[in-house]
Amino acid sequence: MHNLSNRLNFSGGPGALPETVLQQVQQAISAVPEVGLSILGISHRSDWFAAVVQELEDNIRTLLGLSKGSHVLFLQGGATQQFSMIPMTLLRGKTSPAEYLHTGYWSGKALAEAKREGPIRVLWSGEANNFDRLPTDAELDYSPDAPYLHYISNETVEGLQFQRVLGRDDVPRVCDMSSDFLSRPCEADRYAMIYAHAQKNIGPAGVTVVLLRDEILKDAPEDMPGFLNYRSHIKAHSIYNTPPVFSIYVVLLVTRWLLNDMGGLGNMAALNSSKAELLYRTLDQSDNFYRGHANIADRSLMNVSFNLPSKDLEQRFLQESAAAGFSGLGGHRSIGGIRASLYNGLTLSAAEELAGFMAEFKKANG
Amino acid sequence: MHNLSNRLNFSGGPGALPETVLQQVQQAISAVPEVGLSILGISHRSDWFAAVVQELEDNIRTLLGLSKGSHVLFLQGGATQQFSMIPMTLLRGKTSPAEYLHTGYWSGKALAEAKREGPIRVLWSGEANNFDRLPTDAELDYSPDAPYLHYISNETVEGLQFQRVLGRDDVPRVCDMSSDFLSRPCEADRYAMIYAHAQKNIGPAGVTVVLLRDEILKDAPEDMPGFLNYRSHIKAHSIYNTPPVFSIYVVLLVTRWLLNDMGGLGNMAALNSSKAELLYRTLDQSDNFYRGHANIADRSLMNVSFNLPSKDLEQRFLQESAAAGFSGLGGHRSIGGIRASLYNGLTLSAAEELAGFMAEFKKANG
Repeated sequence: MHNLSNRLNFSGGPGALPETVLQQVQQAISAVPEVGLSILGISHRSDWFAAVVQELEDNIRTLLGLSKGSHVLFLQGGATQQFSMIPMTLLRGKTSPAEYLHTGYWSGKALAEAKREGPIRVLWSGEANNFDRLPTDAELDYSPDAPYLHYISNETVEGLQFQRVLGRDDVPRVCDMSSDFLSRPCEADRYAMIYAHAQKNIGPAGVTVVLLRDEILKDAPEDMPGFLNYRSHIKAHSIYNTPPVFSIYVVLLVTRWLLNDMGGLGNMAALNSSKAELLYRTLDQSDNFYRGHANIADRSLMNVSFNLPSKDLEQRFLQESAAAGFSGLGGHRSIGGIRASLYNGLTLSAAEELAGFMAEFKKANG
Repeated sequence: MHNLSNRLNFSGGPGALPETVLQQVQQAISAVPEVGLSILGISHRSDWFAAVVQELEDNIRTLLGLSKGSHVLFLQGGATQQFSMIPMTLLRGKTSPAEYLHTGYWSGKALAEAKREGPIRVLWSGEANNFDRLPTDAELDYSPDAPYLHYISNETVEGLQFQRVLGRDDVPRVCDMSSDFLSRPCEADRYAMIYAHAQKNIGPAGVTVVLLRDEILKDAPEDMPGFLNYRSHIKAHSIYNTPPVFSIYVVLLVTRWLLNDMGGLGNMAALNSSKAELLYRTLDQSDNFYRGHANIADRSLMNVSFNLPSKDLEQRFLQESAAAGFSGLGGHRSIGGIRASLYNGLTLSAAEELAGFMAEFKKANG
């Protein structure tokens, strides 16, 4: 496997990071320039690390245009922990059901955990259609009484992505943006809560970013375990207990790259669109050799999921692409097929190379 | 601060890692040799990562002589998450109190979280004596009816360490070994549960090792959030959701170093003792210039906490030691003073240099 290259890593996550960030991380393993010690041995109680957390928070606010009414937290446990912490905080003791959209594999996971904590109404489900599309506005009959609306902006497995903000302005919106956070502007102030683990677009596994508006905590239970209580983390500026110092530092480097090298999320979104358009065009011009999983209107700019005419051809595609240096192209274990993930760190030239490979492969096998 | 050196990092945690491990980590940021991709972009669902988890589990079993009756898990959330998960699992619904030792700052944190979940009996507390010693066996009147006994093997803040296994063989022992795990042999099979975050002796912050015996889960509640349920993690071989891939990989490298370079925990313990003896000798021969916090019989081999005759001298000690390249010597914010932490990654020669500095400083200021 030694001809693999980070540049051609289309993994669904943990995903590829920008080469310039990897170089800085490598340096930091030996010594963080402004400290002189390995990033792995610097105390989370140091002034330097408090400044890292502050700069990262500021960078995220700047990138998203987020107002001061929202807290920015860095937690552990991934989106999975949020699947539970959210209903523990916002749903326990409530009688009106929270509204959940069931649009794919990951929203199904969120739903299952929420059901343990309180009443849930599934507002819409794509399960009967194998999650091949997202709902239209006309299909969504929101209740004004829901404690909150929960949905996932991008379903990585099926390759479905909302291109609009859902819900009502008078019901708190809670959105799992794990797989498209900081890949594009997102009108962050319209959400009561946004959460995202890092390992798609912004860093390595091990840290989860949570943005939440103060007012949604006003009725939250007080008697929760400290590490499950958002208030503990707010009060401690994300250093309630030892945080994942390394992962947080890498996310800081990625936000610096987004601000300084990429010039912000508008540019990042344009680049991400170009990569996705290139691959979808390859699908659409393949005479049904490459068959996209998602309804065209709901296609994800992050994850291009598709099938080939047979399982044998899919297997050959994976083998030959690996021999050519590509990696991470196997579809999620729940649906199989092929998936090309195009997170922030993946370059346009890498997408072009994959499109080129796909054209050649079709010519040889189509 | 640019003359600081990783070699002279006496931080209380995250602590220094062996130089040879740092070199391998640096290489892995660019490409893990046997994969060819950055450690930050390798899928946690890859065969390679499953093998990493398996090898790490095997290494820990070998190092500790741990029998197959115990599971070995790699979780997130630090010891703080375990402070809650343990009583959620072993105490909810019980009428007999669990027994907790209150031997310092960290056992106090564990206690506070346990109290939320069920009945607790504080078997012994050193609080009235400013946590300057540990209990003798004669002071501990264990109940045979306790659901479990909880204690912390090494209190990092105060520098207190048990040199024996506590409790009764008919009551499950649960031990927080966060700050001395894999620093010495520990008769691991005598514990029902051992847990340890990585950032002292075995790796970076972001992963927590949990060893637990199957039988203690037999009465555990089933209806817990998935990520708080030990059974979920056992069933998924620690890949229930995306684990902290990077941190787990670094811990693997440290266990390889312990096995192959150090020759096991017996040797590691001997080296750790030598480092501590050197510093304690410096304290004891200082004519009360350096004043150890801990009772001599209960001294920690990991954390040497001491004071100087005045706060001014302590400040000068910290300034001059930093100028000489030492770092991490400030005492914990809760008690101040000086603390030299001597985790696995810190070399004997570094301890010798510190002892030399301390002798010179005393000569100049004593």
